[in-house]
Formats: sequence, C-alpha cells, structure tokens
Amino acid sequence: MLEIERKFLVKSDTYRKEAYDQIEIIQGFLNTDPERTVRVRRTGTKGYITVKGLTDSDGTTRFEWEREIPHQEASRLLEICEKGVIRKMRYLVKSGKHLFEVDEFYDENEGLVIAEIELQKVNETFVKPSWLGIEVTGNPKYYNSQLSINPYQSWRKK
Amino acid sequence: MLEIERKFLVKSDTYRKEAYDQIEIIQGFLNTDPERTVRVRRTGTKGYITVKGLTDSDGTTRFEWEREIPHQEASRLLEICEKGVIRKMRYLVKSGKHLFEVDEFYDENEGLVIAEIELQKVNETFVKPSWLGIEVTGNPKYYNSQLSINPYQSWRKK
Repeated sequence: MLEIERKFLVKSDTYRKEAYDQIEIIQGFLNTDPERTVRVRRTGTKGYITVKGLTDSDGTTRFEWEREIPHQEASRLLEICEKGVIRKMRYLVKSGKHLFEVDEFYDENEGLVIAEIELQKVNETFVKPSWLGIEVTGNPKYYNSQLSINPYQSWRKK
Repeated sequence: MLEIERKFLVKSDTYRKEAYDQIEIIQGFLNTDPERTVRVRRTGTKGYITVKGLTDSDGTTRFEWEREIPHQEASRLLEICEKGVIRKMRYLVKSGKHLFEVDEFYDENEGLVIAEIELQKVNETFVKPSWLGIEVTGNPKYYNSQLSINPYQSWRKK
C-alpha cells in the first residue's frame, strides 16, 4: 500500500474542541532507518507493527505495511525497541470529507503538535481548518522515527 | 516466547538422505542489529515476519516473536530489506524425539551448512546424528543476520 500524507504544524489548540475522539499512543522503533522503518505502536486496547519504506522525492508517497497485533505482544516488542519511545495524544478531527489526526507529543517532545491528513491522490484538495499552521510534509525532522532520536525539546536547546 | 536453540556445523551430506522434507527459504532483514533483529522470510507458499531480541549470556535463549503473513506481502517487504538477501535450502531431519533443521546456503554463502535443533530446556539431551559437526551456538558470525552482512564466501578470502 502506498501512503499519501501531508503534515502541518498547528496555530492554536481549538482542534481539541472539534475532535470527535482521542487516543493515547505509545510507540517505539525496531528500526529508525527511513529506508526501512519498523514501528511498534500500542494504544489503549490494540497493538500494531508497521513497516515503512522511503518517501519518494516529493515527500508525500511512502510504502506502508501494517498488521494489528495483540496489545500484550506490542508491550513486549516495545521493550526491545530503540531508546526514545514516543508518547502522544492523538485527536481525531473531521474536516470536510477528510480526517485530520492531530498529535500532541509528551515527554522529550513536549510542546510539539503535528496535524496529518491522508489523501487518495497527491494533488487532492481539502478543507483547511482555522487552526492549521505551516506545512512540514517531507521534512525528516518531523518524522516520528526522527523525533525518537532527536526529540523536539533538544531542538530548542540548539 | 523464548527460543532455546543449538547450532552445529556438519561433517557430511548424509542428512539429505535422512530428511523427510525440504523447503527453499529466501530471507532478508529490516534490521540486522542483534538487539532487535527484524527478519522477513518467504518459503514456497508462505511468508513470515520475525523479531528477535538479544541472546542471553550463555548464547542459547533469545526472545522471539513471529507472525505468518501472505507470501505476496513477504515479497514486497523483501524489496526494502537491507542488502544481502539470503537463499538457502532447509532439510528437515528427525533425530530421536527432536527435529534438526539443516540449512544449505547458496549465493554469497555457498559452501556453508548449519544444523539447528530447538530445545525445551537449556540442558536437554538429544540424539547426535552421525553427520553432526562442531557446535557453533552463540557465535555471532553464524547468525543469519550476520551472514547477510558478512557472507561465508568473504570469510575464506580473508
């Protein structure tokens, strides 16, 4: 499956009031190499293992393979992940016919909020919510795999 | 799940006559790090994704998590694996109440044959077949993950 995603920063926290659901996510990486990222994710009741390939040159399309796994197996796999497990709250916000996933990061990435939209086509139009900030699609430092190695809190110190 | 395995070289090819089955295996790695090895395997009809953790200090027990996946998904994942995909023929040989898996490697690992037995307990006894050679349990250079980076053919040149 190919994934077409665009990523944005946010300008305000009004997405919280517009959200129809929220889930806490804990995730780690068995590999943070952008050519073959292997992610383990655990939510309140579920687990997932996800493999992603390289993003193409325009930064929007990426091979993605995902499988749901039992919550307990995800916990065990998280134990052997690389250092830098990520914890975040994901708000689900509808915008026109699309869905935004707005991730508020915690711990070493506290202060960072990223909104993502998944599209069917590269040039697909969508309704821009008032809280949507600048686009950061394709910028590797906002990849979750990179946030686990070089977290947001450490950017501000530099 | 913890895996207890012992590995041996072989002294002759008589295991071929004793084998009750054989399967060709193609496998690659999404990570060769021994702390979090991620292997993709494809056989004639099946596919698997397997995660292994560190081997403990005596070299026999290792965390292992495995999931069967469709053959076609394994093929797609093999495409993004690290360089050094391994191809081998596995012979299945019964020995007393145990099973030996004898792997004949091809391509860059041509000439290498490794026999593995899986045990329930660390000190479990088993019947030694006549063709069984010296033990190499716990020697990292015989890990399949290492054979994909530093194949057998390159050892002999050194």
